[in-house]
Amino acid sequence: MSLPDAPITIRPLHAADEDAWRALWTGYLDYYETAVTEEVYRVTFKRLLSGDDTEFHGLVALVDDKPVGLVHYLFHRHCWKVENVCYLQDLYTDPALRGRGVGRALIEAVYAEADKAGAPAVYWLTQEFNYAGRMLYDRVGVKTPFIRYNRPS
Amino acid sequence: MSLPDAPITIRPLHAADEDAWRALWTGYLDYYETAVTEEVYRVTFKRLLSGDDTEFHGLVALVDDKPVGLVHYLFHRHCWKVENVCYLQDLYTDPALRGRGVGRALIEAVYAEADKAGAPAVYWLTQEFNYAGRMLYDRVGVKTPFIRYNRPS
Amino acid sequence: MSLPDAPITIRPLHAADEDAWRALWTGYLDYYETAVTEEVYRVTFKRLLSGDDTEFHGLVALVDDKPVGLVHYLFHRHCWKVENVCYLQDLYTDPALRGRGVGRALIEAVYAEADKAGAPAVYWLTQEFNYAGRMLYDRVGVKTPFIRYNRPS
Amino acid sequence: MSLPDAPITIRPLHAADEDAWRALWTGYLDYYETAVTEEVYRVTFKRLLSGDDTEFHGLVALVDDKPVGLVHYLFHRHCWKVENVCYLQDLYTDPALRGRGVGRALIEAVYAEADKAGAPAVYWLTQEFNYAGRMLYDRVGVKTPFIRYNRPS
Repeated sequence: MSLPDAPITIRPLHAADEDAWRALWTGYLDYYETAVTEEVYRVTFKRLLSGDDTEFHGLVALVDDKPVGLVHYLFHRHCWKVENVCYLQDLYTDPALRGRGVGRALIEAVYAEADKAGAPAVYWLTQEFNYAGRMLYDRVGVKTPFIRYNRPS
Repeated sequence: MSLPDAPITIRPLHAADEDAWRALWTGYLDYYETAVTEEVYRVTFKRLLSGDDTEFHGLVALVDDKPVGLVHYLFHRHCWKVENVCYLQDLYTDPALRGRGVGRALIEAVYAEADKAGAPAVYWLTQEFNYAGRMLYDRVGVKTPFIRYNRPS
Repeated sequence: MSLPDAPITIRPLHAADEDAWRALWTGYLDYYETAVTEEVYRVTFKRLLSGDDTEFHGLVALVDDKPVGLVHYLFHRHCWKVENVCYLQDLYTDPALRGRGVGRALIEAVYAEADKAGAPAVYWLTQEFNYAGRMLYDRVGVKTPFIRYNRPS
Repeated sequence: MSLPDAPITIRPLHAADEDAWRALWTGYLDYYETAVTEEVYRVTFKRLLSGDDTEFHGLVALVDDKPVGLVHYLFHRHCWKVENVCYLQDLYTDPALRGRGVGRALIEAVYAEADKAGAPAVYWLTQEFNYAGRMLYDRVGVKTPFIRYNRPS
């Protein structure tokens, strides 16, 4: 077990993180009661490491040198702006490490990456009933009145 | 005035549409009580016409050969899928032509473009209190429990 | 047909309104895809006319002397106040007369009754997706962040 | 300190509970960033003890014979039903005793009182962003799409 005050480090996802990344991301997908194919695990991990600006980027949070959280984020066009904006997706913290600030550190690291990239906005979507998440999001972000509609499947 | 049953045609945005596009998009931005700089008009219009897959694409709705509505949409990565998904933004109909199905025709045209591109999902965001919009969206789409948070400005 | 500018009169529900009241209230219940028994029609109508302060009160809107809308309201205790508050329920306008201000006139008449009774607050509940209603409510009232939970049935 | 597994007892509010009731209710009002006058404390407490069916009733939760939670509830008319319905208001648990099931026990005790009174429905309102409350309410109740509007003050 890590000590309650062990420091949190955030760094870009590395190729060597694959096993830990798979475990964390599976936890995230489980939360949404979904699952993806082996192909999606492989393709997404490869894209996250590609360094290509049109792909999602990944950060991991480390405690005691072990990945305990992840976040994926994408820069994309926005018609209202010259600069790209940043879409933060797939934020997850190992349940055993909750309450220490891992989620907040990951969001703030994405803010820093957005600043470096000159992206004037960062946003994310969450389910209205994700109470635990929203307790954090209300502190580090601002709720908007925007809701999401999908094409019917 | 166009006849109430004049047919609606949807086609990609052309360079010759610039004036009409500016007028319609200004109407849209007005709805959101926002405004953009001349640079954003120029850059966004150029990007919409670029044919580049990482840029927003534009469609216009014509009645009597006159643009009366527009929609912008973007294909982007999604970590849960191999294929890109389609983000529909900036849907607008000239208020004088409301109630004829222009908005629906534009959304359905984006669905058709998504099918052509192999994008398995189309989504959009709207304000919770956009009642007129949601009357349409509830018919052509499905409300999700997802809400948007922004980085504080 | 009544003229578009025929004036709207609001008055308390009378015994002679029973048939018109039944028709309007059935329209309201239809909107909620519900129905009530004959006993409920009888008991509720009797209570509305009772003049008893613990019962719902009823107002009707008249156009050309014909009831075209109704509202029911109840004064009840509120632990935070010495005075009773006013719960407005069952607001309905004949669809053929929509857009003339009948709903607004009924709500404002309840405000006046609340003032007469010394009730410092009037409130009502509506479905989040009652777009037509909310277009009016946003003008005559204020949306709160309160949502309703029910005991499971 | 009470033991973590000390049993929770629910009983009606008594005159002797006044000091404890005031402390708990003040905690509740603080949560809503509101305050009431001394008159409201006196009048509300007296009404809660009156045994009058048109008044709010009160229950307290005891741990180690000490009140650690309260709930107020009111039976009132509903036009759609012959029977009264039950409006649960002012649910509160001492923060030091959270997580032990005090809130759930109070809600379930109101359900039992509603059953005794023949009230076929129990409902309550809560702020959309009352995350801690809603974690409980989603387990013991059902969220409805109803939202509350107020007369502007």
